[in-house]
Amino acid sequence: MDMQKLDDYFKTNRQEHLEELKAFLRIPSISSLTEHQKDIQKGAEWLKKSLEKAGLENARIDETPGHPVVYADWLHAEGKPTVLVYGHYDVQPVDPLHLWETPPFDPHVRDNKLYARGASDDKGQTFMHIKAVEALLQLNGELPVNIKFIIEGEEEIGSPNLPLYVEQNQDQLKADVIVISDTGMQGPGRPAVCYGLRGLAGIQIDVKGPKGDLHSGLYGGAVQNPLHAIAEILASFRDKEGVIQVDGFYDDVLPVSDEEREEFAALEFDLEQEKRDLGIEEDFGEKGYSFVERTWIRPTLEVNGITGGFSGEGIKTVLPSEASSKITCRLVPNQDPDDIIAKLRAHVEAHKPAGVTVNITDFDKGKPFLTPYDHPAIQAAGRSYEKVYQVPTAFTRMGGSVPIVAAFDEILGLPVVLMGFGLASENFHAPNEHFHLENFDKGLRVISDYLFEAANLKK
Amino acid sequence: MDMQKLDDYFKTNRQEHLEELKAFLRIPSISSLTEHQKDIQKGAEWLKKSLEKAGLENARIDETPGHPVVYADWLHAEGKPTVLVYGHYDVQPVDPLHLWETPPFDPHVRDNKLYARGASDDKGQTFMHIKAVEALLQLNGELPVNIKFIIEGEEEIGSPNLPLYVEQNQDQLKADVIVISDTGMQGPGRPAVCYGLRGLAGIQIDVKGPKGDLHSGLYGGAVQNPLHAIAEILASFRDKEGVIQVDGFYDDVLPVSDEEREEFAALEFDLEQEKRDLGIEEDFGEKGYSFVERTWIRPTLEVNGITGGFSGEGIKTVLPSEASSKITCRLVPNQDPDDIIAKLRAHVEAHKPAGVTVNITDFDKGKPFLTPYDHPAIQAAGRSYEKVYQVPTAFTRMGGSVPIVAAFDEILGLPVVLMGFGLASENFHAPNEHFHLENFDKGLRVISDYLFEAANLKK
Repeated sequence: MDMQKLDDYFKTNRQEHLEELKAFLRIPSISSLTEHQKDIQKGAEWLKKSLEKAGLENARIDETPGHPVVYADWLHAEGKPTVLVYGHYDVQPVDPLHLWETPPFDPHVRDNKLYARGASDDKGQTFMHIKAVEALLQLNGELPVNIKFIIEGEEEIGSPNLPLYVEQNQDQLKADVIVISDTGMQGPGRPAVCYGLRGLAGIQIDVKGPKGDLHSGLYGGAVQNPLHAIAEILASFRDKEGVIQVDGFYDDVLPVSDEEREEFAALEFDLEQEKRDLGIEEDFGEKGYSFVERTWIRPTLEVNGITGGFSGEGIKTVLPSEASSKITCRLVPNQDPDDIIAKLRAHVEAHKPAGVTVNITDFDKGKPFLTPYDHPAIQAAGRSYEKVYQVPTAFTRMGGSVPIVAAFDEILGLPVVLMGFGLASENFHAPNEHFHLENFDKGLRVISDYLFEAANLKK
Repeated sequence: MDMQKLDDYFKTNRQEHLEELKAFLRIPSISSLTEHQKDIQKGAEWLKKSLEKAGLENARIDETPGHPVVYADWLHAEGKPTVLVYGHYDVQPVDPLHLWETPPFDPHVRDNKLYARGASDDKGQTFMHIKAVEALLQLNGELPVNIKFIIEGEEEIGSPNLPLYVEQNQDQLKADVIVISDTGMQGPGRPAVCYGLRGLAGIQIDVKGPKGDLHSGLYGGAVQNPLHAIAEILASFRDKEGVIQVDGFYDDVLPVSDEEREEFAALEFDLEQEKRDLGIEEDFGEKGYSFVERTWIRPTLEVNGITGGFSGEGIKTVLPSEASSKITCRLVPNQDPDDIIAKLRAHVEAHKPAGVTVNITDFDKGKPFLTPYDHPAIQAAGRSYEKVYQVPTAFTRMGGSVPIVAAFDEILGLPVVLMGFGLASENFHAPNEHFHLENFDKGLRVISDYLFEAANLKK
């Protein structure tokens, strides 16, 4: 198609597109907090209308035991491949709220960046796919491929209901390739297609001591303190270099070829700049692996939160009744989340301090994912990026998890193409999340082009 | 005097006394929280009026750089000794609020126990001294001794301004004995005079990592996590049996004589009952010391709180920017709080994990305290208890700290008598603090009798 025409269309409609996106971002659809249940519903309804407005058909909100899935399609490209677009309309919590420069659900553009929770992860990126379809239908009256959208509301809580939904709707979700924009680029102006993601295994550890909080002066020294107990457990998980001490943790880690590691080493990664960006004096982690490798090809165990005792202003000499901690592991092929959680349980059991009871609850689970980076669907995405960004595309892995990716791979048996437009500096999951609008503008063109590229894929 | 007359007086006025005490307890005078500044002032004003109503003279509120001290006296027992009564009108914070059966500042009597924050520690016990003086002045028109009250508003935050106040008012505070009711009895119906208290040394540890919260998937494994770092530091403080691993921590601990330890062993202490009361399966602590000894004659290090990362419902895969913890040590003679804090700092410096900065702030400090248990002022207190409770008085030490006791000892050079009426089960510093009214009723009589006993002390 005439890319100039497409370009003009996106320029003409830019302000309207941004206003629409802001409306989407104003909905505080935090999936992990029950008080936002209604906002989740609002998010799904907003999306359904947006898909219909774009010209998609059969738009509907499918209930699940958790948050609903939004579906829509356009299936009039007879004999052509079908692209399944996945995204999510739920977002992360926003605390600590006081660190946001503007409120998380009151979107603001500053310095060509759109600030709001979800701006990048993943409302902004999902929205681009809708607008690309709308553009092509407006300009051409048709799409070069068949297309299906499946947009869920539970990604940030580990997509507990989507695998069953996908299994139950296998026929309807039949496609030739899955496209997901929920990952990042290599850096500003440096497009990347991601062919591997880490998996996830999360637990909560609850330590219980005396039945009520005690005065630490009267009982300290004679009654085990749950805070000491949890500190001991947490400290036992890793050595001083971050090597995980859980028995058998690394057993199933697939070796990574020298060739692949050489490709990672060749990426323009500026460690000193990264450290300045993060505000750290020194990086950290397993000896023998680079910063990139530690986050892409090595599994991790990170404490995400600890609570217990008094945390207000001043001092309170309490020996608290309980303490708890949330932990998530990132997994690499071929680690299995259930196996890792069993190993974490065994570790805690073996390291349980005296005088307390310890309870472990499973949280999120997601398998790691890997597609050969020379797959045609992946290479086609690389070409679309190059046309717009005018630089070679990097083929990368990523440290984060999109748990559903492995499920798509397993249930539908399709290649998954991760075309991300986020930047690592965009604070997703943290205060002041934002989205660089340069990548919003370019991304609309990349996605539109990819639909033409996908038309040539083998059915 | 005629003790029957006194008894009748307390019986007749019981309801009125309780209503007055409830009014005192309704003032949320939490010293550690700045938002309660006005309530502290209210508490001081209420006390001044109550002292005046009792017949005390020269009542006044003395400002300090922190919360005010309330003073009053009655000095008409010419040639007789002077008793200095110390108490505090500030209280501990009340969180977690949801664990209170009735609101902390809405006093309720259930099962002859008065429930409210401060009911036992220390508003209830301080109030008894005021009412004992009021009773004697009402019945006899005079007291058998001279008496001075000094009631502070910063005990729960370590009495930062009282030592200087005492030093600057040495002449005015001249006395022959100091009486403090801010400790506990041996058990229900088992009076105790305490002759030793542990000291206190508190610090806060703040660990800082990256400048903002990070996504644990994207950065986990390559950036040090402040929560892991703080867990490592905290776990390094003690071994699995609670023996403190800080270099030189036990250096200045005075040996305790076999005779004294035999007396402790002879106390009726029921470990199994204690464990049931506390809801623990097993006790904990240094080998070679009993439960009682671990809390009375051995120093401790207890974590009072840890915060950092996400603690809401569900999961948030964050690698947080910071983590912090509050810690207090209980000290025994002759450990020095400043020396111990220096040793804690050195320990943290030596155990600082890679990749983070660690900052330590001093908190409360209080020296340990010890008076010979055969001192006449102590023995006299034992007799007053026995007359009312009709059982022998135990002479004990205590695990808690009343930091000002050591300062009184040091600055005024007076014997300190700790006549407590609390019970260990009364949840002070915890939800559902209460005061057994049996000890309120008996305590009024013990305190009144002690003023007659004190009249015979050598001036």
